[in-house]
Amino acid sequence: MGRFISDKFKKLKAYVPGEQPRGTEYIKLNTNESPFPPSPLVIKALGEKEVSRLNLYSDPTAQTLTDALEKYYDLQKGSAFVSNGSDESLAFIFHAFCDSKKRIAFPDITYGFYPVFADFFGIEYKKVPLDRDYRIRVSDYSDISDNVIIANPNAQTGIYLEPEEIEELVSQRSDRLVIIDEAYIDFGGKSAIPLINKYDNLIVVQTFSKSRNLAGMRIGMAFSDPGIINDLNTLRNSFNPYNLDRLAILAGTGAIEDRSYFEECTGKIIRTRENTVKELEKLGFYILDSKANFIMAKSKLISGGELYGTLKERGILVRHFDDERIRDFVRITIGSDSQMSALISECKKITDGRKEI
Amino acid sequence: MGRFISDKFKKLKAYVPGEQPRGTEYIKLNTNESPFPPSPLVIKALGEKEVSRLNLYSDPTAQTLTDALEKYYDLQKGSAFVSNGSDESLAFIFHAFCDSKKRIAFPDITYGFYPVFADFFGIEYKKVPLDRDYRIRVSDYSDISDNVIIANPNAQTGIYLEPEEIEELVSQRSDRLVIIDEAYIDFGGKSAIPLINKYDNLIVVQTFSKSRNLAGMRIGMAFSDPGIINDLNTLRNSFNPYNLDRLAILAGTGAIEDRSYFEECTGKIIRTRENTVKELEKLGFYILDSKANFIMAKSKLISGGELYGTLKERGILVRHFDDERIRDFVRITIGSDSQMSALISECKKITDGRKEI
Repeated sequence: MGRFISDKFKKLKAYVPGEQPRGTEYIKLNTNESPFPPSPLVIKALGEKEVSRLNLYSDPTAQTLTDALEKYYDLQKGSAFVSNGSDESLAFIFHAFCDSKKRIAFPDITYGFYPVFADFFGIEYKKVPLDRDYRIRVSDYSDISDNVIIANPNAQTGIYLEPEEIEELVSQRSDRLVIIDEAYIDFGGKSAIPLINKYDNLIVVQTFSKSRNLAGMRIGMAFSDPGIINDLNTLRNSFNPYNLDRLAILAGTGAIEDRSYFEECTGKIIRTRENTVKELEKLGFYILDSKANFIMAKSKLISGGELYGTLKERGILVRHFDDERIRDFVRITIGSDSQMSALISECKKITDGRKEI
Repeated sequence: MGRFISDKFKKLKAYVPGEQPRGTEYIKLNTNESPFPPSPLVIKALGEKEVSRLNLYSDPTAQTLTDALEKYYDLQKGSAFVSNGSDESLAFIFHAFCDSKKRIAFPDITYGFYPVFADFFGIEYKKVPLDRDYRIRVSDYSDISDNVIIANPNAQTGIYLEPEEIEELVSQRSDRLVIIDEAYIDFGGKSAIPLINKYDNLIVVQTFSKSRNLAGMRIGMAFSDPGIINDLNTLRNSFNPYNLDRLAILAGTGAIEDRSYFEECTGKIIRTRENTVKELEKLGFYILDSKANFIMAKSKLISGGELYGTLKERGILVRHFDDERIRDFVRITIGSDSQMSALISECKKITDGRKEI
C-alpha cells in the first residue's frame, strides 16, 4: 500500500475473485455462473428504448424492483433491500450492525469474503469449525452473542440446512442478528425468507447472479424486518444512493417476473448436478452432498491442486482453494450437459490407471 | 435507526438526492442530467447479443474501460480507477486515505455528500468558507495538513478554478492528498488530469453522469498516480470486486470512444447556458459565473424557496438548498433549448410586476 493509505489498511488483504481468463476459450466451471442466458423478458426489457434513456438517473429507491420482490415472496412493504450485487448488501450489513462491541461469527469453511468484509470495516470475527463431515452444527452457535452469518447452502461445501435448523439458530437468542446468505438456495433448498415475518433478528440475503442468470448485471437483495431494511437504506444513502443503474432495475424486475423460465433453468441445473455426481462417483470421486449449483469433489488418485492444474491445461477451469480442510477438493460449477460431459470425460482420462496417492 | 444498529450510526443522516418525481411530467432541471441521449456507439454496444451474455460475470478489472480512459487522457497504465458512479470513487477515497489522524477539509458550500461520507466513515472534517463572492481562495488551504477535497467547477456555485490555481493547491504541501472532483469540468473548464504525471498527491475524480450522458448507467472514475490507484483497487476488491456490470463497462467504453458526439453535446449545453444566463439577467436575475451544466440564480423579487415552489407548481423542477449562504438562489440544470425557453418564460411571468422583497 502507498504512502497516503490509512494505518487501518496497511495490512489489508483483498478478496481474490475466481479467474476471469482472457484469450484462450475455457469451459468455465470456476465462478458458479449459470450456463443459460437471462430470461427472454430481460432481453426484451433492455431494448434500445431504455438504453436511449440512460442520460437520466435511475430511481434511487429502485421501487419497481423492490415491489416485484415483495410481491414474489409475499412480504409486507419495506421488507426488501436491493444492492449492486449481494456482496454490497453483505458489506452494508457488516458495517451497519457490527462494531468493536458486536462482532461476527461464521463457519471456518464458508464464503471467503466474510473475513475480508470484517477486516475492511475493522470488525473482529470468530470462526466456528464445521464438524468432521463438513456440516454446520447449529448447537455450536447457541452460546454466541455476536452476530452470526451462515451461507445456506454453505459456500465451498454446498451442504444445506433445513428451514427448521435455520429457525432454531434464529430463535436461540434474540440479542443478535442472524444473516442467512442464500446465494445458492434455489438449486434444491427451501428459503428462510418466510421466517422474517416471525423474527426481527433475521436477514436473508440473495442474489440474481446464480439462479436468475444475471451475474453480469450485479443485483443482490436482502429481506428482513422493515426496521432493519430502513437502517440499510440509510447506510446506502450515505454511501451510494443510486447504487442500481436503470438497466439493472429493469433486468431484475424482468427476471423475477419470469417464474417459469427460472424454474426451467434451475430444474435443468439440478438434474445435471445429480447426473454429474453419479458419473464422477463411478470414477471413484468422493463428493459432498450439494444443494448448490456447484459440487466439491475429491479423488484418492489425484490431489486437488493437481486436478485443478491438469484440467486447466485441458481447457477446463474449476476452482481450487488452498485451505487446509478442503485442499483435497476441487469446486466444480454445474454448467450445461455438454460442458459436464467434457468435464467427466477429462476426469476419466486424468485418473485412468493411476494409483492411490 | 433500529435496535441492532451500531452505535456509530445512531445519529447518521443520509444524503438527500434531488427529487425523482413519479406521476406528473415535469421539466426536470434539478439533478444536472444531460438532456441528450447517450452516444449512438453506446446504444449499438448494448444490443441483444451483449444482453444475452449477462449470465456471465463482468470483468472485475473492467480493463477495456480503464484502457480506453488511459488512452483518451494519454496516461500511463494503471492511472485510471472505475466505480459504480463517482460517489463510490469518493467513498473509497475517504475510507482509504482519511482517519482520526488524517482528516479532510472542503469549502463550506460544495457537494453535500462530502460531510455525509465523512460521517459514514467516522472522519472529522473542516469547512473552509468561500469568500464573499462565493469563490474558493486557494491560499486559505496552505496551512491545512488534512487531505483537501475541492469540486471544480464547485458544486452548487458552478464557479471554476484554472489549472494554475489547482497546481498551486497541490504543490502547497506534499504531506496531504488533494482530491479534485471534476463532475462538471467538461462544460468549459480545463481538467487537472495532466497534473497527475507531475504530482503523486493528487486524485482527479470524474463521472459519466453529466457530460457523457450516462447518469442512469452509474459510472465514475478516478485518475492518479498508479500507487494510489492500486490502493483504491485493493479497497474495491475488499468491498465489491465486480462493482461495474457488463453493460456499464461497454457503455462507458462506447461513450469515451465517441469524442465528436461528446463535443457536440457539451458544446450545445455551453451555448444554451450562455443564452439562458443572458435571458435571466434581462429579467433582473443575479447569476453566479458558471462553467458547469447548471447555474445558480437569484432575484431581488422572489425568495429562492418561493421561486422553487412556484416553478414546481408550474411543472418545472429546479433545486433549492436551505443553506444559509445560498438560500436566496435556485440551482437550475441546463437542459435543452426548448426546456430553457419554458423556464425563462415562467420566470418572466412569476417575477412580472413584483416589487423587491
